Amino acid sequence: MESGPPGSSRPTEPGPCLSSQQGADQAASASLQNAAAAQPGRHSLAVAAVLPAGGCGERMGVPTPKQFCPILERPLISYTLQALERVYWIKDIVVAVTGENMEVMKSIIQKYQHKRISLVEAGVTRHRSIFNGLKALAEDQLNCKPSKPEIVIIHDAVRPFVEEDTLLKVVTAAKKHGCSDYDLEFGTECLQLALKYCCTKAKLVEGSPDLWKVTYKRDLYAVESIIKEKISQEICVVTEEDNKYVSHLLEEVLKSELNHVKVASEALCHAGRDLQQIILDQCYNFVCVNVMTSDFQETQKLLSMLEESNLSILYPVVVVSVHFLDFKLVPPSEKMESLMLIREFAKEVKKRNIWLCGLLISYPQDEQKLQESLRQGAIIIASLIKERNSGLIGQLLIA
Amino acid sequence: MESGPPGSSRPTEPGPCLSSQQGADQAASASLQNAAAAQPGRHSLAVAAVLPAGGCGERMGVPTPKQFCPILERPLISYTLQALERVYWIKDIVVAVTGENMEVMKSIIQKYQHKRISLVEAGVTRHRSIFNGLKALAEDQLNCKPSKPEIVIIHDAVRPFVEEDTLLKVVTAAKKHGCSDYDLEFGTECLQLALKYCCTKAKLVEGSPDLWKVTYKRDLYAVESIIKEKISQEICVVTEEDNKYVSHLLEEVLKSELNHVKVASEALCHAGRDLQQIILDQCYNFVCVNVMTSDFQETQKLLSMLEESNLSILYPVVVVSVHFLDFKLVPPSEKMESLMLIREFAKEVKKRNIWLCGLLISYPQDEQKLQESLRQGAIIIASLIKERNSGLIGQLLIA
Repeated sequence: MESGPPGSSRPTEPGPCLSSQQGADQAASASLQNAAAAQPGRHSLAVAAVLPAGGCGERMGVPTPKQFCPILERPLISYTLQALERVYWIKDIVVAVTGENMEVMKSIIQKYQHKRISLVEAGVTRHRSIFNGLKALAEDQLNCKPSKPEIVIIHDAVRPFVEEDTLLKVVTAAKKHGCSDYDLEFGTECLQLALKYCCTKAKLVEGSPDLWKVTYKRDLYAVESIIKEKISQEICVVTEEDNKYVSHLLEEVLKSELNHVKVASEALCHAGRDLQQIILDQCYNFVCVNVMTSDFQETQKLLSMLEESNLSILYPVVVVSVHFLDFKLVPPSEKMESLMLIREFAKEVKKRNIWLCGLLISYPQDEQKLQESLRQGAIIIASLIKERNSGLIGQLLIA
Repeated sequence: MESGPPGSSRPTEPGPCLSSQQGADQAASASLQNAAAAQPGRHSLAVAAVLPAGGCGERMGVPTPKQFCPILERPLISYTLQALERVYWIKDIVVAVTGENMEVMKSIIQKYQHKRISLVEAGVTRHRSIFNGLKALAEDQLNCKPSKPEIVIIHDAVRPFVEEDTLLKVVTAAKKHGCSDYDLEFGTECLQLALKYCCTKAKLVEGSPDLWKVTYKRDLYAVESIIKEKISQEICVVTEEDNKYVSHLLEEVLKSELNHVKVASEALCHAGRDLQQIILDQCYNFVCVNVMTSDFQETQKLLSMLEESNLSILYPVVVVSVHFLDFKLVPPSEKMESLMLIREFAKEVKKRNIWLCGLLISYPQDEQKLQESLRQGAIIIASLIKERNSGLIGQLLIA
């Protein structure tokens, strides 16, 4: 374990940005603003991250190493990379993987469009893997390095929920206490080794409870549920101007049925400028209300927009195509044939990671009965969004 | 913390059954047979359990104390009680709950038909709650006590996955090492207290990884997924004699699509004697193949049997009512009206915790196309069973 910047044994001097303005305690409440203030400009610290990912996951009891286990069809390590990547002041991310997983890792980086990632070969132990990563950074072996990093964050590939706040706390503490190899685990062997063998001080930085390590199979279940919950916090109800009334009714019921879920509504018209913003803001759930019962015009418009965006690269986007019908005037069976087209659309957009389902909602004249069928519809929408069950793609559900 | 049997301070003498035949190491591989051999007869040990359940679950971040959080609509503590209850040699189970939760706890015991349970009021700390439970056992305050227990197992209400093997190891160790208040947590404050203050030896017994404690919200997600997985290990395909051929085809596809899942098939005829056995053996998933496309005769027969049994008291039973139709000869819309009756049946049996869905499978003449639609059907069945999504009750899905 080396101290100071890789290649040097001297603890890093506190830089003008992080150290002069805030102590460790203040950094504890560090926000994006702090990071933004601390980083850009000429005094910015060069920060890199090394992810040891050479483990074989024996404790997991599954044949796939845990960092490659799929969560909503995407490997766990991709979530961890995503968490580090969105912290723009981490300039390089070095992942240490075994030779046999090198190609898998390359395809993950390509498929999920990860940036600023370099790969090195893992060592026989976790510490050797870390060493290989640090060495690559120190010797400038990797491409496109603007400068050697002053601080290197060591982060487990199987801790997907790391927050920018925590990373900033670690960097601040490293800057202040001169510990370059600073592990995000609390009091693990890494910290002990640093204290015992390195001519450096080490400081334990409190992480959030979300920072836990995926160790057992049950932890994969927990990760999946947490991710499903995270991407189900917002639903956008989309419609054409003509359909605003009924769409508004559905929106209101969704709001009352789904506590804690933000429900926005947007018109498809006006070239969908606001809708574009919602897509950019990463809303992964859409309820599209169609004007004609047996027509998919609005849904198709929305699907085109979603396909053009890159929204579904990281998470499956759920689209519920909603159709209203007065079951007393027209029996559902009459519209069934045309509504079954949903299966073809769904098959097509599934290739782009967009999960489409249909929902036919009864629209009786009676106000109370209408509320009841809207409530049923909201429960079904909530199920589809929260459970994100790929087996139901292309189904037409009835409320 | 008292040592020896409650009310006494002398460590329990090794009894003739457990101590003479097996040491702690042998007990490590203890099975149901050991328990059976160790328990009945005149030399049986009197074993009881105390569950402290007075916590308020602050770390959980949810308003409900974690032991009362619902998993598949049933409170967590009921799963723990179920795990202890099925160990027949635990004669009494004492649960310590706060005064304000006393009525909730009583209704849980009644609703889920738990047996051999007594309630005491929790103390202000976990240790006081344990003490109250032990005191009640020692003073014979509880009804129907045949004799004071010689060994008392202290088990957290929020460790639902305890196995009989582990409990037997603990009892064996307690018998040998004379520690009566033996906590199943590994090296927690309980063990420290026992070592420090009690005139007794304490021995750490290795638990299984499943023995972990529900602490954070993510642990509830994990519990739910583990339970869903546990009750999805077996599917029974049910049909009438007339329909054996197509039912067999579906069964074969289910077997190949669902690895690790046991697929059995049973006829509804012959007064369903074998089916009764499957229900008794606690299979929670049924696929019922109906002979006539738009008729629910077989499904209704099965539902009656399930309603008569007590199978759905502890877990929701999923029933998929399967109907075949050649979509080329008869468009699905023609049968839709009669198939929509599924919603009424589903509403009715939901009251008994039976979750019914319909599945219409395309039955083309072409062999390859048939295989494809059967595969689609199997994927949908797998989704319904594994995800156990209550929002889809009464839906008619199409493969």
